[in-house]
Parts: sequence; structure tokens; C-alpha cells
Amino acid sequence: MIGSIEASPLYRIANPKSIVVFGASNSITSMGTSLLDSVLSLGFEGDIYPIHPQEDRVQNVKAYRSVLDLPIVPELALIVLPTRIVSESLDACGRKGIRRAIIVSGGFKEVGGEGVSLEKELVTVAQKYGIRFLGPNCIGVANPRGKLNTTFMSFQGNPGFIGMASQSGSFVTQMFGYLSDYALGFSTAFSVGNEANIDLVDCMEYLGACPDTKVIALYIEGIRRGRAFVEMARSIVPKKPIVALYIGGSEAGSRAGLSHTGALAGPDKLYEGIFRQSGIIRAHSVMEMFDICWMLGSLPGTKGRRVVIQTHSGGPGAEAADACARAGLELPPLSPETIKRLRAFVPRTGSISNPVDFTFGKNLIDYFSEIPKALLDEKNADILLFYFFAPSQRLERMMRQMGVPPEKVKERASKMANEYSGSIMRLIESHHKPLVGYTFQNVKDPLVRVLIERGIPIFPGPQRAARAIEAAYEYTRLRDKILAADSQE
Amino acid sequence: MIGSIEASPLYRIANPKSIVVFGASNSITSMGTSLLDSVLSLGFEGDIYPIHPQEDRVQNVKAYRSVLDLPIVPELALIVLPTRIVSESLDACGRKGIRRAIIVSGGFKEVGGEGVSLEKELVTVAQKYGIRFLGPNCIGVANPRGKLNTTFMSFQGNPGFIGMASQSGSFVTQMFGYLSDYALGFSTAFSVGNEANIDLVDCMEYLGACPDTKVIALYIEGIRRGRAFVEMARSIVPKKPIVALYIGGSEAGSRAGLSHTGALAGPDKLYEGIFRQSGIIRAHSVMEMFDICWMLGSLPGTKGRRVVIQTHSGGPGAEAADACARAGLELPPLSPETIKRLRAFVPRTGSISNPVDFTFGKNLIDYFSEIPKALLDEKNADILLFYFFAPSQRLERMMRQMGVPPEKVKERASKMANEYSGSIMRLIESHHKPLVGYTFQNVKDPLVRVLIERGIPIFPGPQRAARAIEAAYEYTRLRDKILAADSQE
Repeated sequence: MIGSIEASPLYRIANPKSIVVFGASNSITSMGTSLLDSVLSLGFEGDIYPIHPQEDRVQNVKAYRSVLDLPIVPELALIVLPTRIVSESLDACGRKGIRRAIIVSGGFKEVGGEGVSLEKELVTVAQKYGIRFLGPNCIGVANPRGKLNTTFMSFQGNPGFIGMASQSGSFVTQMFGYLSDYALGFSTAFSVGNEANIDLVDCMEYLGACPDTKVIALYIEGIRRGRAFVEMARSIVPKKPIVALYIGGSEAGSRAGLSHTGALAGPDKLYEGIFRQSGIIRAHSVMEMFDICWMLGSLPGTKGRRVVIQTHSGGPGAEAADACARAGLELPPLSPETIKRLRAFVPRTGSISNPVDFTFGKNLIDYFSEIPKALLDEKNADILLFYFFAPSQRLERMMRQMGVPPEKVKERASKMANEYSGSIMRLIESHHKPLVGYTFQNVKDPLVRVLIERGIPIFPGPQRAARAIEAAYEYTRLRDKILAADSQE
Repeated sequence: MIGSIEASPLYRIANPKSIVVFGASNSITSMGTSLLDSVLSLGFEGDIYPIHPQEDRVQNVKAYRSVLDLPIVPELALIVLPTRIVSESLDACGRKGIRRAIIVSGGFKEVGGEGVSLEKELVTVAQKYGIRFLGPNCIGVANPRGKLNTTFMSFQGNPGFIGMASQSGSFVTQMFGYLSDYALGFSTAFSVGNEANIDLVDCMEYLGACPDTKVIALYIEGIRRGRAFVEMARSIVPKKPIVALYIGGSEAGSRAGLSHTGALAGPDKLYEGIFRQSGIIRAHSVMEMFDICWMLGSLPGTKGRRVVIQTHSGGPGAEAADACARAGLELPPLSPETIKRLRAFVPRTGSISNPVDFTFGKNLIDYFSEIPKALLDEKNADILLFYFFAPSQRLERMMRQMGVPPEKVKERASKMANEYSGSIMRLIESHHKPLVGYTFQNVKDPLVRVLIERGIPIFPGPQRAARAIEAAYEYTRLRDKILAADSQE
């Protein structure tokens, strides 16, 4: 485990001051052009040097005939060339003194045959010059804070706290929009491709040391260095959680193998064991992986799994209770003190139990202040699972009926939603207990949106919330187990 | 089983020509006022008569002192009064000649004690006059086509094909926005409350006969008439599918009982058996229930469970293959003819297998035309599971680089997205095989949105798609089993 992020071979790959780009052109359909466009359009602040055999300018940037002609030694080479000429270009980079590269080009080991020997050539060239490189057959790096995006998709999202290393490029590029819907984003995301030189373990090391990364997400199709993987994970987990999605063998293998679940049993169990030993939380879908990241990056770990549920109606309460039970969480009875406190706020037709059912209480503000306050104080519970219904409509209607002019209704209702969210935020700050939300509303609903943007995880549906809560508890246990084992050594 | 919807006691409840409203006032905080406002703001086209002891006008509608003063006999009474005076108001309705009512007021059987006898009183009054009523302790009816909404939430959504009967009002009101995100909506939704007079089975009968209802959703906490329930379901299932969410006992019971899964085992197994016997598909969350409704209402049932997957990259393909395998679906190998056809369109770095991986092919249009065409022709497969990535960005970038003026880029890209969706729609029309989508993009993404609006189910993530496909196959089997049993009688 490195002490500082600068010691990682990935540091200058994720944070280069200058980049030489091979394969961009003035043709709009080339992949290299898209990549250069991504780098340019995110506003990369360092120097960019396109290499092109004929053109003087590529995408309005001064181009050079050869890397050897460059006025400086760039910190990173970005290579998106036809397979056969990648190796000679990497060699030219080596001669120039470049020591870091991202090789996006495919057609190597993953296609078999001649591709295998072409990939060996790359490794030999890199060894000759001491070059460390990501790929081939990858889409590189997304580092929103550093304004570096070497993927062929431009960002829609913001910097966030999720560090990712992925054996699928799509699980980086296709998640920009998805994550930003939840006000989430990547700290740095690596697409590792064929891992000919830099691999998943190196990325874990980097993200473990990365100060912007609160939680690490891994998409794994196969682990190449088992022992190093376990050791690296165990050194990181006491500091930050790792969540992994493992689907079942290599891409090629999974295509053939997954058609019958029987073929999965062997490796699946093996990976299950590796994750347990590593202190890694396993997810079973990419959405579940990011749900758990959201939870673990937003809230302090939970000491227990005793959940108290607050709802405003029976159905969503029953579904949440069911989801919690199925996820392995406990629903303790409320203490007599809490029951006594709640009597003033919960109507007779509601229920002071667990779940607490506010039903259609008249004072909506109680739902967002006095009731959650009493439940966060509840000594029998470790966590509050809170149901967000759509109060905006009720508020807007009340405004209309109170004679608020139509053009002011939205504004006033939104002001009130802000008050409710402010009340929730104050409660969270004054209590050291997590509040997690669930809702059936769109995450663009004003009240839900404001809270999500302030860092409260509000999941679509109670099942996703319950799984994330259980994962938060799992992390506490996994971390403590590693710490206990380490202290015995 | 009734031959026509008009024969149902619910017909005039869901389609009244005139309504008398008890409990609305000019006070903005009363529930009755909200309900009247819902009815008015959806533009109900029949006559509305508020009853109020003092006011001459309620919410700008002429009010009457007593139901007996009304100039006509309204077809429906909507009662939102304090518990103690509900019974006498229902009696007055009976005397006036009214034969249908929705009783929204709570405080009856569900609170125990005196509430139980108050509810008995309601039943007696109804019997005396031959009144059929929904409730008490319900939120009534949402019938968007008939412009009737007696719930306290106004609609955001459109009429749709999902007929619903729910033992939770929230699973009607809280789902308006959720469903409209997927271009879905209710045909008619009933909140049944305490079922003192009209129950779940009556609602199933109505929805079974309702021509706008393609699929029936049930939220069940407890079934009161077991045998009638099974018989009604079996008479409906050959014509349209029924999907049920059962969570585990009554609301009160689930609150206490769900805290330990042990308590669930008994009734849960019992309900599982009832559903199997009834030919009903069981869902385990409200979202899963609506996913299955979406699938079954959109597409013809599937004859088999052999799925072919089309993706543009390995990770999403592997996750989909894994999700299908876990859901019990099959992933057959492609036939030699299909493989031969695909060679012209899938690049060397992709994969012609199942999943088919287009990878970053240059001709995006092939992804939406020739490739799905070949896969819909595939004789080894019953269904195509299609991955929707976010092509808009790639398109917009291409436009920019082609020199399309910035202000035209969005428009042109959206035009191209329309071409792609048109191509998909034409393929679906010319093939008699379902195409189901999955995506990690927001359902507001232009291409995804257009197709969803044209009736293609595109699920967030492959797990939801796989579960829905399996349910479609389950429906075919359940229906055939009932038809076979019926023909033996």
C-alpha cells in the first residue's frame, strides 16, 4: 500500500500535465477524434499534442508529424491507432522519454490468434523503456475534478466520491447520466481493458490513496492476481469500503457459460470466497453496486441493523417492513418513551408502532420535524428509514385554496419544501444516526431533489434502501474483522 | 363473471353521471375539500352537489343543506365525514334513493373497539336500502378516461391500460407520477379500504370486464373470500393477466409480524398456493408489479423463454446474460444463418454470439436496423432483449464535427433518434416476436422516451427486464393450464 497517491503508476495517467494523442484526425467518424473531442470539451488545462502523418492541425489543435518532433516530453500518451501500428508508436514514445500511456485500441489478446502476440509485443516495448500503461482495449480515465476525460462520451455529471475500476468501459461511460440523476459522480474512474501492464490491483491502490474517493466500486469479470488483490483490498477496507460486481467469468466465457446457471456455480463460489476474505461487499447488479456506494459514501457506517420505519400510509410501510425483513434487517418495537412522545403527532387512524404510520395527519410539518426527531432519539434503533411521499401537490393545492396567486403557487410550495428539507437536515446534523429515504416519486421531485443534493440517499423503492442499509452494516462488520485480525498479527 | 361492465356494482361508482359530496367545505385543510378539488380539477363532466350545513357555496359550487333537498337523485355519494355521522348520512342517501357510495372516512373496523360496531351499522344501513359502497377507510376511485378522481391527489398522468384494486390507497395515489414516467397509467384504480360491502373480488370482476383494462394489478394484505377470489381469477386469466403483490398479512399484522421472517412463513406459503391455483403472477414489490403489468399490457405473451441479447458492449451484455440466467430464462446459441447474416454488421472486435456485442461499430444505424432484424428472424429465440445505450451524445458530437450550426445540433440529433426508433418500430410491426429493452439511461433520454411512448417496454437495468420476460412466459403457461383444465370439465 502506497502512502501517497503520487507514488502510484496511475498518478500521471489520471493527472497528466501534458498529453500526446495518437489516432485523432479531422475525420469525424474516427474513435480517436471522439476521444480528443472529449478531452478538449471537458476543458483539459494541460497541453495537448495530436500526432498526425499529414495534417498540420487536428480538431483546431496544432499537430505534429511524429512524437519525436514534440517540443517537450508529454507526461501521457493516449493511443487510439489501428492495432498493427500501436507497438511502434509506443516504442517511439519510449524513445522520446514518455513513461505513461493509455492504449485504447482493441484487437489484441481479446480477439485471440495474432492479437495475443501483438499484446506481448506491447508488454516487451513497455518493459524496455519502463513505461506503465492502461489497456489495451480500454477507454481510459475519467477524472472530472482534474478535467480529464479520455472516454468517447462527454460528461453530463459532476465530480463525486465514487472511485471506480472497471473491466467494462460501458460501466464508466454509460453511468455518467445515471449517477448524476442521484447527484453522484466519479472521483476517478478507470477502464482497465486487457490489463496487459496496469491492472485492477494497481487501480485499487490508487483509489485507496485518492483523497477524493470515499468508496471504491469494482466491476470484475476475472481477477488476474488473486493474492495481491486480497492483500490490497484488506489494506484499503479499514479506511474505505470496496463494493464489487462480479458477473461470472470473462466476457467471452460468460457469453457461452451463463446460458445455464450450472456453469456459474464453480467460479461464482470461488469469487464469493475471495470477496469475503478481502472484506469486499458484493453487489449483483451495477445499480445495486452504485446504490451501496451511495449509501456508504454518504453516511457514517451503521453500528447495528435495527431499523425504525416512518411512513405516511400502510402500504408503503408494509412493503418497507417486508423489504427490511427480507434483507436481514431487524425492526425493533418502539420504546415506551418514544410511543409517548409520538402520541401528540400521530392521528388516531395512524399507528404508533414500527413502521410508524402518520396517515393523513393535518400538520405536515410534524412529519418532517417532531416525528423523525423522536425516532432518531429512539434508543432501540440504529437507523431511520423514512418514506418520502409527494407532498408538493398537497402543498400547491393548499396554496391555491388559501388564495395564493396562481403564478406564486409553485414558488411558495417550493419554499415550503425547502423548509421541510431544512428541518430534516438539522435533525441529521444534531443526531449521530443515519436517515435513509425511499420513495416512489421521481428523483426530480423538488423535496426529494433538494435532500439528495444535500447528501441524503433516497432510494427508488424500499428494497434498494434495505439492501443498501444491510450493506452499510456489512461494511462495519467486515472492517472490524480485518482490524481485529490485523491487531493479532 | 359478468358479461358486461355495466352489470358490476362498481359501474356507477367508477362512471357516475352525478355525485353528491359530503364533507367538503371552504376550509382548506379538510380532506373533503381536497377530494372535491380533485374531482373538480380533473374536469369531471357530470353534476356535483356538495352538502354543507351552513355554506351556500362550497369551493365555488352551489351547496345544499341536506341530500334530501337535491333536485335529482345523484348516482354516487362521496362521503368524507367524521366517523360518527357517516352512518346517518348514508341513511339519508338511502332515503333519497341513492344506491352507490364511496365512504372515505376512517375510524371504523381498522381502529377496533367502537369502530367495529360503527362499521356494522354502515353495513346494516346499506342492506336496508340496497346500497353498494366502496370503503370505508379508502380513497375511492381513479378513472382518468372518465375524468373521475376521488383521491386527495390530483393526476399528473394519463389514462393507461392497468386496472388496479388495492388494499392501500397510497399504491394508487403515489403511483400517478411513477407510472407516467414510463408512459403508463391506470384504466381504473380502486382503493378498497375495509371492504365492508364491495371487496377485492368485485373489483376484479369489474376490471375483468373493463375494455380499457389490459392487465390487472392487485395489492393484497389479506383475502376475505378465498374461494370466490380463486374462481374469479380463473375466469379472468384466460382473457387478461393478473399480477398480485402480497406482502404478508394485514397491515396491523405485518407491522408486528414482519420483524421476524419466521412469522411470515405460514400465510406466505398459503398465499403462494392461492396465487398458483388462481393463475395469478406474484410480484414482490410494487415496482416489480408495475414492471410486469408494463410487459404484459404492451406485448403479446411469449411462447417460450429463449432470449437473444443485443448489446453494444461486454459489461452490459454480461450483466444481462447473468440476469436472464438468474431469472430462469434460456440463452440459446445463434443459428449458423444468423451468424452468417451478422458478419457484415458486427466489427471484428465485437462478438457474434449470444449476447451479440456490436462494440463500437461505425454504422450506428445497423445497431437499430440490420442487427435486430437478423435477431428477430432467429428461429432459436422467442424474444429479443435489446440494450439501449445513449447514442444522442455521439450523434450530437458527429453533427457538431460535420459543421452543423450549434443551434441545429439538438434538433438534428433528435431527428436521427426518431429515425432509429422508427426503424425499431417497423421491425416490431413486421415480426411477431417481442422486443424488450433495458438501459441505464434516464427514461427521459430522447430515443428511449420515443420508444417507451410508442409502447416498447424499456426497463432500467437488465434484472427488471429479465423478471418481466419470465413473468410473460409464466402468464402463457398459467393461462394454458387454466384453459386445459376448463376444457376437461
